[in-house]
Amino acid sequence: VTATIGLIGGMGPAASVDLYREVTEATPADLDQDHLRLLIDSNPAVPNRQDAILRGGPSPAPLLVASAQGLERMGADFLVMACNTAHAWEDEIRAAVAIPFMSMITTTVERATAVAPAASRVGVLATDGCLAANLYQSALKAVGLEAVLPDGAGQARLMAAIAAIKGRGSSHGHVDLAGLADELVSAGAEVLIAGCTEVPLLLHDRDTSVPLVNSTRALALAAVAQALGP
Amino acid sequence: VTATIGLIGGMGPAASVDLYREVTEATPADLDQDHLRLLIDSNPAVPNRQDAILRGGPSPAPLLVASAQGLERMGADFLVMACNTAHAWEDEIRAAVAIPFMSMITTTVERATAVAPAASRVGVLATDGCLAANLYQSALKAVGLEAVLPDGAGQARLMAAIAAIKGRGSSHGHVDLAGLADELVSAGAEVLIAGCTEVPLLLHDRDTSVPLVNSTRALALAAVAQALGP
Repeated sequence: VTATIGLIGGMGPAASVDLYREVTEATPADLDQDHLRLLIDSNPAVPNRQDAILRGGPSPAPLLVASAQGLERMGADFLVMACNTAHAWEDEIRAAVAIPFMSMITTTVERATAVAPAASRVGVLATDGCLAANLYQSALKAVGLEAVLPDGAGQARLMAAIAAIKGRGSSHGHVDLAGLADELVSAGAEVLIAGCTEVPLLLHDRDTSVPLVNSTRALALAAVAQALGP
Repeated sequence: VTATIGLIGGMGPAASVDLYREVTEATPADLDQDHLRLLIDSNPAVPNRQDAILRGGPSPAPLLVASAQGLERMGADFLVMACNTAHAWEDEIRAAVAIPFMSMITTTVERATAVAPAASRVGVLATDGCLAANLYQSALKAVGLEAVLPDGAGQARLMAAIAAIKGRGSSHGHVDLAGLADELVSAGAEVLIAGCTEVPLLLHDRDTSVPLVNSTRALALAAVAQALGP
């Protein structure tokens, strides 16, 4: 019997669509019935994570906890969340449910060490709030790796690109994240982490000269492996 | 206040990913918080609809009803279902919940009459089970339209194409549904209905010489309009 994945989503919805698609494509299946069950709460009303971390805005925790508990009641066996920055409230979610929570931050760092075992410097493309919450820097430091971050101008370009895709869900081809990736490589990054779920909608493996670890795909692969079981 | 959409999905998951994406792209939004809430039960364990209708296999009704009731309990204001053929059990779903169920069959036929008001003959690309259950033929007849169906060989090609995409979620480019669409036009169809949620993953507007009504998109547009309210 396979496990049911509970997905806390909607931050934004296009990123959750992408995670749902990645889970579907990562599942070995010939028939509908070979696929995994997912329960998804796509709740875009969760307060802005940037505002909460950087500017004292309302906390996302109550709605994240409500999603987690609703998914648990509906039958989820474990939880994932399609937003890196929202992992700043991971402890509150874990404390509110009896089922396990699989961290996108942890699974992404594990994948980075797997695809680039000799690397010591890891470029991180993540939101201002995600960086302020120290999520990737601390997870990398815990395994002896150093985070390489964009400079101020680069980080501002990244935030503008992420904001653009949170609207209608497409980038309209106006964003150059490949150039930003190049800058991180020039600054010493030997592998890159797409550490915001909107980034893989804009930047692909083919755009970078070093391996690119897609946090959405890393979580999808780990969740599928967990759900399929031994 | 907008309404929450409950999505009975997983039949197959790639089609539900497509409906979730269509809803996201159809929603006028600049920010995450402008998007609609969706609750999704992607349950691929629902028994095969073809087997149930054509070969006396186990009924999908109990799991469809369980999904509908679970989504209602979790807070859905109305329900949609990402599988045309499963609408053969629409009455059982409606009877089991207190919230409205929006029919993909009805919304698709409404869209066909809107995009081709002068048409009298409508080509239907749907599964064997969907045709045997008379879902599109009766909905078209109710508004004075005649269904044009593929011949036996064409219908077999369609079923093979649908089966291929139910695995990993991609068609690998080996399927010629454009040729089948042409055959329906030659047989008199003035507008075409992609009346299986896998078909829009394989056949696009640009592939057909008459208007193509995508059942997934028709349902997404109607659901977004309903959820946004007046």
